[in-house]
Amino acid sequence: MNDAPTTMSPLAERLLAGDKRALARAITLIESDDPAGWELVREVYPKTGKARIVGFTGPPGVGKSTLIGALTKELRKEDRQVAVLSIDPSSPFTQGALLGDRIRLTEHFLDKGVFIRSMASRGALGGLSEAALQAALVMDAAGKDDVLIETVGVGQGEIDIVDHADTIVLALMPGSGDSIQALKAGVMEIPDVIVVNKSDHPMTDTMIREVRGALSLAHTPGGWRVPILRTEAARGEGIEELAAKVAEHRAFIEAEGTLAERRARNLCSEVLGLATARLRRRLEAAIEDDPRVAELLNRVVSRELDPASAAAELLEGEIDE
Amino acid sequence: MNDAPTTMSPLAERLLAGDKRALARAITLIESDDPAGWELVREVYPKTGKARIVGFTGPPGVGKSTLIGALTKELRKEDRQVAVLSIDPSSPFTQGALLGDRIRLTEHFLDKGVFIRSMASRGALGGLSEAALQAALVMDAAGKDDVLIETVGVGQGEIDIVDHADTIVLALMPGSGDSIQALKAGVMEIPDVIVVNKSDHPMTDTMIREVRGALSLAHTPGGWRVPILRTEAARGEGIEELAAKVAEHRAFIEAEGTLAERRARNLCSEVLGLATARLRRRLEAAIEDDPRVAELLNRVVSRELDPASAAAELLEGEIDE
Repeated sequence: MNDAPTTMSPLAERLLAGDKRALARAITLIESDDPAGWELVREVYPKTGKARIVGFTGPPGVGKSTLIGALTKELRKEDRQVAVLSIDPSSPFTQGALLGDRIRLTEHFLDKGVFIRSMASRGALGGLSEAALQAALVMDAAGKDDVLIETVGVGQGEIDIVDHADTIVLALMPGSGDSIQALKAGVMEIPDVIVVNKSDHPMTDTMIREVRGALSLAHTPGGWRVPILRTEAARGEGIEELAAKVAEHRAFIEAEGTLAERRARNLCSEVLGLATARLRRRLEAAIEDDPRVAELLNRVVSRELDPASAAAELLEGEIDE
Repeated sequence: MNDAPTTMSPLAERLLAGDKRALARAITLIESDDPAGWELVREVYPKTGKARIVGFTGPPGVGKSTLIGALTKELRKEDRQVAVLSIDPSSPFTQGALLGDRIRLTEHFLDKGVFIRSMASRGALGGLSEAALQAALVMDAAGKDDVLIETVGVGQGEIDIVDHADTIVLALMPGSGDSIQALKAGVMEIPDVIVVNKSDHPMTDTMIREVRGALSLAHTPGGWRVPILRTEAARGEGIEELAAKVAEHRAFIEAEGTLAERRARNLCSEVLGLATARLRRRLEAAIEDDPRVAELLNRVVSRELDPASAAAELLEGEIDE
């Protein structure tokens, strides 16, 4: 069942040839949870692993999408094929944008070497991450050199998605006090590159000192010295350096052998995450469809049966079937 | 199997009688995932549902634990029995604290009407939430009038735990820019009460205006007008008002009938969360113990088999057994 198919589906062939419409179609299939989407990922998976996956995280409002837009422009100068995947519900890529943002994005929409796609937060645990990771795989299969993933890192985060990147960029701006505190307290994981955007703000130097202070307290893994960059993405300032640092980090982990290690670990956790998300969805469906499950939950609400025993009964039922 | 036992275990009896050492023992059993802990929760569950569960969330460093300490003191004036459960890894309840914090906490450690317990972040998805929710149940069963849960709301959050509270308090301080942005962007859910702590800071008025602005953009559910309070918890300022607002919110949701609705919804999601966490743990164990699973993952890493197909195979194996 898992042998490579002797003939590829036409969609897979077009995708592997880099056809933009095939890529758009593939992601739509994945997003709508169409079995054809999963089948497609299965077909093209052996051709993945070449793209550089860069995850951007940080609180809303710091200008992650402007930063990604500016970086895309920079990467296009080197003629790299770029795909952007946004899963930040507050991002202009994802929904309502200011006019200025729309114009900056439109510039890229007309460029054949750039593919932009957003995914809305579905709310369902695991559902969105699941789809986003598959979307990143088809972008990779379509021959993109860089897959830039935008996500939000404060509040109920889809942080697991960014964890699957080869390089994680944390974007902050002067005033990102909570993120600094979270870094200091060891609650937020240390990224690979930190960008202080909107650096024309008078508090930028203070901010950079605070970031440096937070990093000095943290345990940074494996010899990589996390650079703290200042950018003014709306004017393209500092973007060349950002591109250089992203490339440098990639070269570093490749040389150290940690890229392969990181990817292996991420893939295992992806398999586990996908399996868990599917199980959860199956259970959710059972709650809606199965009167015995509804009855079980009623007994919990009336304090007859405790939640853990109900969970155990739910699992037994699930596994019997 | 789920009928009420005719005789209670001695530990359950002591717990229901409000014995502090029995409560401590119960939580230790739960935390160490001892089957006796789950059995105990099953026994005492019919006696739960009386306590007022108040969840405190907010970025590290805003003084949530000082706030909880001060509120505890206030609640003790009304002779209410208080339990505190901290699951914020950056909290002084949970680990290293400044001397000042320790002293303030010690005051309560000597009070028989107060029970303080912390749980460390285990890192395992679902594992900690699972244990914390069970711990809150035994605190409730032990006759506590108030169960105050402290958690961190920025970064990789255990936000699901706070979602199980009857009343959710978001603590901020001047400089909590990321949280304000997250509220504005609709990325963070609207709490029931907002506290701006450390309100001796000169930027407090600005902060309160920003919070009000963020709230005005947000959709607040069901007629409750979210109060924005200013506190200076270290000096006990504003705490009386906080206690009043927490009581008022509770009375409001009780009168509106939304407390029962909220609890029913929370209990269902707790059952689902427990079931999912158990399944995930079972899968994790399979990865370590089962050579076939290790082989499956190797095929993913070598790009032979895609993650979704591997997840499906993993589930099939799981359900066969």
